Amino acid sequence: MKTAQHSSGLPRLRARRLGLQSQYEAIVLMHRDCPVCRSEGFEARSRIELSHGKHSVVATLLQVDEGLFAHDEAGLSEAAWRKLGVKDGDLLNIGHPRPLASLSAVRAKLYGRRLNGSQLEAIVSDIVQERYSDVEMATFIAAFASQTFDLTEATALTSAMLSTGDRLDWSQPIIADKHCVGGLPGNRTTPIVVAIAAAAGLIIPKTSSRAITSPAGTADVMETMTRVDLGLDEMRGVVEREGACLAWGGSVRLSPADDIIIRVERLLDVDCEAQLIASVLSKKLAAGATHVLLDIPVGPTAKVRSEEAGRSLARNLEAVGLQLGLTVRTTLTDGSQPIGRGIGPALEARDVLSVLRLESDAPTDLREKALDLAGQLLAMVSGNSLATERQRAMELLDSGKAGAKFVAICEAQGGFHEPPTALFTEPVIADDRGLVSHIDNRRIARAAKLAGAPVAMAAGLKMCVRLGEQVRKGDPLFILHSETQGEAAYALDYIRANRDMITVSAT
Amino acid sequence: MKTAQHSSGLPRLRARRLGLQSQYEAIVLMHRDCPVCRSEGFEARSRIELSHGKHSVVATLLQVDEGLFAHDEAGLSEAAWRKLGVKDGDLLNIGHPRPLASLSAVRAKLYGRRLNGSQLEAIVSDIVQERYSDVEMATFIAAFASQTFDLTEATALTSAMLSTGDRLDWSQPIIADKHCVGGLPGNRTTPIVVAIAAAAGLIIPKTSSRAITSPAGTADVMETMTRVDLGLDEMRGVVEREGACLAWGGSVRLSPADDIIIRVERLLDVDCEAQLIASVLSKKLAAGATHVLLDIPVGPTAKVRSEEAGRSLARNLEAVGLQLGLTVRTTLTDGSQPIGRGIGPALEARDVLSVLRLESDAPTDLREKALDLAGQLLAMVSGNSLATERQRAMELLDSGKAGAKFVAICEAQGGFHEPPTALFTEPVIADDRGLVSHIDNRRIARAAKLAGAPVAMAAGLKMCVRLGEQVRKGDPLFILHSETQGEAAYALDYIRANRDMITVSAT
Repeated sequence: MKTAQHSSGLPRLRARRLGLQSQYEAIVLMHRDCPVCRSEGFEARSRIELSHGKHSVVATLLQVDEGLFAHDEAGLSEAAWRKLGVKDGDLLNIGHPRPLASLSAVRAKLYGRRLNGSQLEAIVSDIVQERYSDVEMATFIAAFASQTFDLTEATALTSAMLSTGDRLDWSQPIIADKHCVGGLPGNRTTPIVVAIAAAAGLIIPKTSSRAITSPAGTADVMETMTRVDLGLDEMRGVVEREGACLAWGGSVRLSPADDIIIRVERLLDVDCEAQLIASVLSKKLAAGATHVLLDIPVGPTAKVRSEEAGRSLARNLEAVGLQLGLTVRTTLTDGSQPIGRGIGPALEARDVLSVLRLESDAPTDLREKALDLAGQLLAMVSGNSLATERQRAMELLDSGKAGAKFVAICEAQGGFHEPPTALFTEPVIADDRGLVSHIDNRRIARAAKLAGAPVAMAAGLKMCVRLGEQVRKGDPLFILHSETQGEAAYALDYIRANRDMITVSAT
Repeated sequence: MKTAQHSSGLPRLRARRLGLQSQYEAIVLMHRDCPVCRSEGFEARSRIELSHGKHSVVATLLQVDEGLFAHDEAGLSEAAWRKLGVKDGDLLNIGHPRPLASLSAVRAKLYGRRLNGSQLEAIVSDIVQERYSDVEMATFIAAFASQTFDLTEATALTSAMLSTGDRLDWSQPIIADKHCVGGLPGNRTTPIVVAIAAAAGLIIPKTSSRAITSPAGTADVMETMTRVDLGLDEMRGVVEREGACLAWGGSVRLSPADDIIIRVERLLDVDCEAQLIASVLSKKLAAGATHVLLDIPVGPTAKVRSEEAGRSLARNLEAVGLQLGLTVRTTLTDGSQPIGRGIGPALEARDVLSVLRLESDAPTDLREKALDLAGQLLAMVSGNSLATERQRAMELLDSGKAGAKFVAICEAQGGFHEPPTALFTEPVIADDRGLVSHIDNRRIARAAKLAGAPVAMAAGLKMCVRLGEQVRKGDPLFILHSETQGEAAYALDYIRANRDMITVSAT
């Protein structure tokens, strides 16, 4: 990164570590009357470039009147401190950052124009270098969410995201992968499918994201049972030993732009198809995958709402994959209600464990869906019939081999432990008898998030009913789990105002 | 506003004023391990509701590790401090804010759906109550900039913005107003038109905005010569005395949503037609106008780039005006190059003064355009022919009556003074002889902003050439004005990299 411009002759300020957590955006606090603010015309919210030696960072300025800071101090947030690599009292050069040329491409996209490869590369490169402020990130995400895109653009965005990070090479002809595009609470098949596939001898180095707009991502769920923040070498070691891993993608710099984008999408509760495609496929390509099975749940309150939209997304994913040398197979699945019982990291982990441990009360829907997907993945790679490979998947699960493989993977990642349990539980009961006729995935997910998921690992909902089931007055519909009373009260408020998130119709 | 939820039983924190300037967004700093963060699961960037007595504010949380804050302190930005009306040490209740329901309407708009009146009212009301974070504001603006809208939506948005602020009643049958949709540097006709119209006996209580994405708004220009932050009663007094005012709209709570929106649009350098219409017309309606003349400059680098786009915008402005009982007349004007010589608050003020003072070197284009507009405004109200009223406008200007009226308005607003002069000036000269064949308004404006305008009042550019003029090698194209050397250097870097912002073609 270039160092700050026009810093020559300007007074330098002394770095001061504030221990300030501001998530992704770097922040600097300076006295409003400090010599740099005065000479450079900086005001609150100005973007400022700070540099020290070879390191530099672009930060958002907040100004302070009196008391907290001396006139020659620059107080740095942790994000800024890390990027500069300074110690307290080091002298910083301060100046205007070079204008962010890629922002005009973001504006062009916002107004509906197509972007080319070099524009997309410039955007992604600036994002990865953390040159975008949070407000600029929000505009970028909104621009992409609001506009249509073509395959050339989606392919170029995928390439740009791929090229800004590391790319793994496993020196194997076939590397399998499996992914769900999301939007269905509790749909935690990945750990089971990976365990079965690895038990069948496939190489499947799985990296997962944390939740974007959902109460849990696979990385959040795995983190309740083992370490997921593996470095590249650690990941390689785990895969060499067990043929698979279940790691968080963010700590290995595979498509790092995606991790930054995802954090802002989560804040805004917005996502978009072009980014979804680029996000999924760049991560798979960076992880070295050659064959990917994609689960696309379709339902009125899932992320993909109609068969037609699902087929279109499937076509686009397969087409972009083809452009980039990745074999993609897609499967549209039932997204009308949550899968399994738990919604939230630890509660979903318990479902996964009960299927792998062959417990008698393991959720049947989760087991069957995981077997379907595992069969498809094995068939995709082997060329055998789906029936043959589904049978093989079932044998690997029922023999306990998949369960043993799962524990072995966790042990290789740093040790297996049971998921945590919530401090507070509260049943939410049916007001009347009748038939469960509708479950709103989005509001169910929102309730789980208000209860604290995914940050509070043990928080979420445990479903007690499924579509088509009879309930009596007073039967529990689900149990709310939370780690703090504040969050429990907050979620219950929402649930009371949204009783129809589960519709019970008189019969 | 409702007070914070679930605050009962939670520890309260002591308010501490930080003197922290963060522009529009309220910020609270708390210790990461403070009892409230722990019990409520708050993390960096969480939105938090703080309340004290009847007052409350929703703020963005930044967390600090150690040193700066005690565990029981909440450090407040100035925006938060003002809204809460507390003093140091007052105990604050802290909790989760109620979910911002209007954000789902913002997301719906982002995905291309139409919004109805109640959705738009909810959004505007939340914005005025400052419940939106900066990231949420950015998403709102991007959503509106990216999507088409229909007249029903534009009318409803205008009504919503109108209904959240004050509305002036002048008890007069005809209240005139004049506005330019912007995008043309130096186009500062308003002070001249208002002076002529008031000298002709019209009632014209003009409120203007500050610059959005330009180097100066009319309020910025007027502020270099007099006070513009008039309260409602002051404004009324000025208009009663002189028939007109030239005030900043933001200090009188006319369409306050607009002022908040404009600040974020400026940060993003984005604007959109629906908001432009709602912004302009809600301000005019709130100011009590009955007849409005709108100047729409059209040119390849103006805000409106084609005659067709100009006519469409004109139709939409007139149609929404009609729906809301406002007579709107529009005029498409030449937007191919800046008007007058100055670009930047004080430099534009000098142009205005030289026209009003009938100085021999006053810029002819500014004088002629102001006379055209004044003639149209007088004709619109009187029903007389345009020729008659333009002649009348010229007589009022050339007799010195308009100039005297302008000074009288400034005196009534708190006193007239000459605009300030820049500390640093630097000519930018022609590299070769030839004909000035193209002037890029956008890059000219950007150079003026980099030089410090509008925050640095005296900063900007003074144009020395116009389209079609012959220049010799070494002739000045414009003079850069700035208040600090840092800003001068920054602007010159940009100018050197963008020499073709003024094209001189060999003849």
